[in-house]
Amino acid sequence: VTRADAARGAGRHRVVIVGCGFGGLFAARALKRAPVDVTVIDRTNHHLFQPLLYQVATGILSEGEIAPAIRDVLRRHRNVRVRMAEVTTIDVGARTVTSVQRGEERTTPYDSLIVAPGTHTSYFGHDEFAQWAIGLKSIDDALEARGRIIEAFELAESEPDPDRRATLLTFAVIGAGPTGVEMAGQIIELSRRALRHNFRTIDPAAARVLLFDAGPAVLPFFGERIGAKTERNLSRLGVEVHLGAAVTGMDEDSLTIALGDGTSETFAAHTKVWAAGVTGSSLGRQLAAASGGTLDRLGRVPVQDDCTLPGHPEVFVIGDLMALGDLPGMAEVAMQSGRHAARTIVARLDGKPDTPLHYRDLGSMATISRFSGVAAIGPVRLTGFVGWVLWLVVHITFLTGFKNRVSALARWTISFVGRGRSERTITVQQVLARQAVAAREAAERAARGGQSP
Amino acid sequence: VTRADAARGAGRHRVVIVGCGFGGLFAARALKRAPVDVTVIDRTNHHLFQPLLYQVATGILSEGEIAPAIRDVLRRHRNVRVRMAEVTTIDVGARTVTSVQRGEERTTPYDSLIVAPGTHTSYFGHDEFAQWAIGLKSIDDALEARGRIIEAFELAESEPDPDRRATLLTFAVIGAGPTGVEMAGQIIELSRRALRHNFRTIDPAAARVLLFDAGPAVLPFFGERIGAKTERNLSRLGVEVHLGAAVTGMDEDSLTIALGDGTSETFAAHTKVWAAGVTGSSLGRQLAAASGGTLDRLGRVPVQDDCTLPGHPEVFVIGDLMALGDLPGMAEVAMQSGRHAARTIVARLDGKPDTPLHYRDLGSMATISRFSGVAAIGPVRLTGFVGWVLWLVVHITFLTGFKNRVSALARWTISFVGRGRSERTITVQQVLARQAVAAREAAERAARGGQSP
Repeated sequence: VTRADAARGAGRHRVVIVGCGFGGLFAARALKRAPVDVTVIDRTNHHLFQPLLYQVATGILSEGEIAPAIRDVLRRHRNVRVRMAEVTTIDVGARTVTSVQRGEERTTPYDSLIVAPGTHTSYFGHDEFAQWAIGLKSIDDALEARGRIIEAFELAESEPDPDRRATLLTFAVIGAGPTGVEMAGQIIELSRRALRHNFRTIDPAAARVLLFDAGPAVLPFFGERIGAKTERNLSRLGVEVHLGAAVTGMDEDSLTIALGDGTSETFAAHTKVWAAGVTGSSLGRQLAAASGGTLDRLGRVPVQDDCTLPGHPEVFVIGDLMALGDLPGMAEVAMQSGRHAARTIVARLDGKPDTPLHYRDLGSMATISRFSGVAAIGPVRLTGFVGWVLWLVVHITFLTGFKNRVSALARWTISFVGRGRSERTITVQQVLARQAVAAREAAERAARGGQSP
Repeated sequence: VTRADAARGAGRHRVVIVGCGFGGLFAARALKRAPVDVTVIDRTNHHLFQPLLYQVATGILSEGEIAPAIRDVLRRHRNVRVRMAEVTTIDVGARTVTSVQRGEERTTPYDSLIVAPGTHTSYFGHDEFAQWAIGLKSIDDALEARGRIIEAFELAESEPDPDRRATLLTFAVIGAGPTGVEMAGQIIELSRRALRHNFRTIDPAAARVLLFDAGPAVLPFFGERIGAKTERNLSRLGVEVHLGAAVTGMDEDSLTIALGDGTSETFAAHTKVWAAGVTGSSLGRQLAAASGGTLDRLGRVPVQDDCTLPGHPEVFVIGDLMALGDLPGMAEVAMQSGRHAARTIVARLDGKPDTPLHYRDLGSMATISRFSGVAAIGPVRLTGFVGWVLWLVVHITFLTGFKNRVSALARWTISFVGRGRSERTITVQQVLARQAVAAREAAERAARGGQSP
């Protein structure tokens, strides 16, 4: 892509960005003063601050605080247009992106393309788990999880049968990465602190929280020492941690795991949260096919060291959908790859050569409960209160928008220093949406069953 | 109901409260130190601060800020149990209330009953309007309205046809009482201020906001002077006010009104909000039948001057479902009648005689836009900035929960002094729920049509 290419169109170089998570947003921002026209296309109207999604799921933050409107975040970027639509086709030959909004298709041409649609929940071949175990990838997921968790306590309070009551008060979290650990910790906080004095029949503090992972460690990404320490901390809080435990089956009120020794075990648990796995957006398959390659085993698109699609230097695949070396799917990688793609486009317009992405590892962190966090920054490991303070500072700093920073800080004061959870509303729409989704999925399963019996 | 009656049961006098709006909540609170066992049954898990619902619908407040969990609000009331279930039957002969939770029925006996289920949106015989004109009675309504309003701007931004774009940017509010006036004012604020710089194709400030009312005045309840002044203020803001205009038809993109002179007019308008009318909960019909009476024309239950059902001194009907003299359906009436019912129950236990409800009119107020409000307190009329400050003070004072007061004040600073709206998230569940509801209603209409062709 050269200046000559750019001049092909009527005007300026056209950049299309698919998806406005951390990768897409940082790419759009890095193009602020560039002589390009940017179109950001996202399925939703909001940029999602995914690392705090579990806090919406447990009633600490409201949806607006972690999901500001994309066009508001980018309002000062006069060269950016935002379109809320679902991208269905990327034609790297014709250099167009087709997107659908309320059934109406539109084709958007590009000179450079940045693909950053992220991932969605993967149930590892058990798609039927979706109806019982809610994933945690979108605002809808978080509100649905919140509704189910709060509702489980409501149902338990009314339940005369003690066994069924215990089942309703058992919460299973599948996956012991940061999201799973944070969810398990926050459900414990909710049951032990926030809901105190709220019930008359049940004791919410009697709720069981189970954390399962097929792997041998909690927070594997943070190294052995932090994993072991986090496991001890979770146990002390009351979370029952089951490692080497692959979930092989579930239904409305139970969950079955296979253990390494060939035996299996079934737990009665009504509410289940799936934080075990993700797979790349389905757009990845189109891109991999177009470049003559295949997806990696996580459903990601292998790219060159400058984040471009092999054979298509004008197409960048960034963030969680990008397979580059051993870079993990995390916010920091998405931000840096997004910025790199944007800078590469600008450099090319200036006739400068491409450079590879040099990822600077700024560390990882997670909270276990209030006042207790872990952080891995290069060789340094921080745990306990120090880890928590660092987590707090980093998340407040990175949260999108000054207003959201102030209001998240206020909410955290309320829920960590105080006792309450401000956001506990169960909506009727959730129940209706759940029914609609279940009906649709059942129909889809039936249709699939019909095709390949 | 005497001490002897109370002793019938195994223990203390049992009070059941149906519905936990202002009436139910104030009744439960007033029973705090009374020697009674209270059961509060509500369809939802939250107490709704309805006067601020329009602020959730326009992205200023989050749902948790005006809808705290009932059991959290009442957690210090050790004699109160809360049950989230839908009351289906009140048997005043057997003195029981039947409620359903997730398909499971339960019957709760009472010695005294306080019925406070409120009202729901009435489309004045045009039930088919429900699919196009969203009411404003519940958190779900408000989130749905928010999603539709924000989405209309998104659709307009992508729309190539200028006529259709204008239709998408036209918002019709039906009903010029406080809710309608406040909605119209806030949609104007949203389009003129909050969304500024957010769009590239459309100018959000070009949005049209239409306000319709079948009656001759805006805010009829506040008197002629305030009505006229509010109408002028709304016009100056950009709201097109149409009085004496009864809505006779609508579809997805238009709305037809009949004018007093026999003519009719059709407006192209995609988004419609219905703030025109309410009707009493369907429980009212059971109660009226049980007392050998009928509902009034607003679907409310006529009661004695002590808020009890004729012939059933142990049954109180309070709040918006109560028809007593010319008391209107407003928060203040609900609070005072709830408190009165509770105090009457306590007085009876002490062997004291019943007293009639003496309603003290503390006035009414509404906001037109930021920094501009109206208040009618006895003979005093306040308008403009003074009216707005009074509105602010009163609403902050009455909002349930200290934390919600602080956080609402912060949000108001953001949206009135600043420019932004913090809560603009459109969820996918809303779309799914809308489809589910539409499908169900279509099926119901078809079924009704089949029965009476």
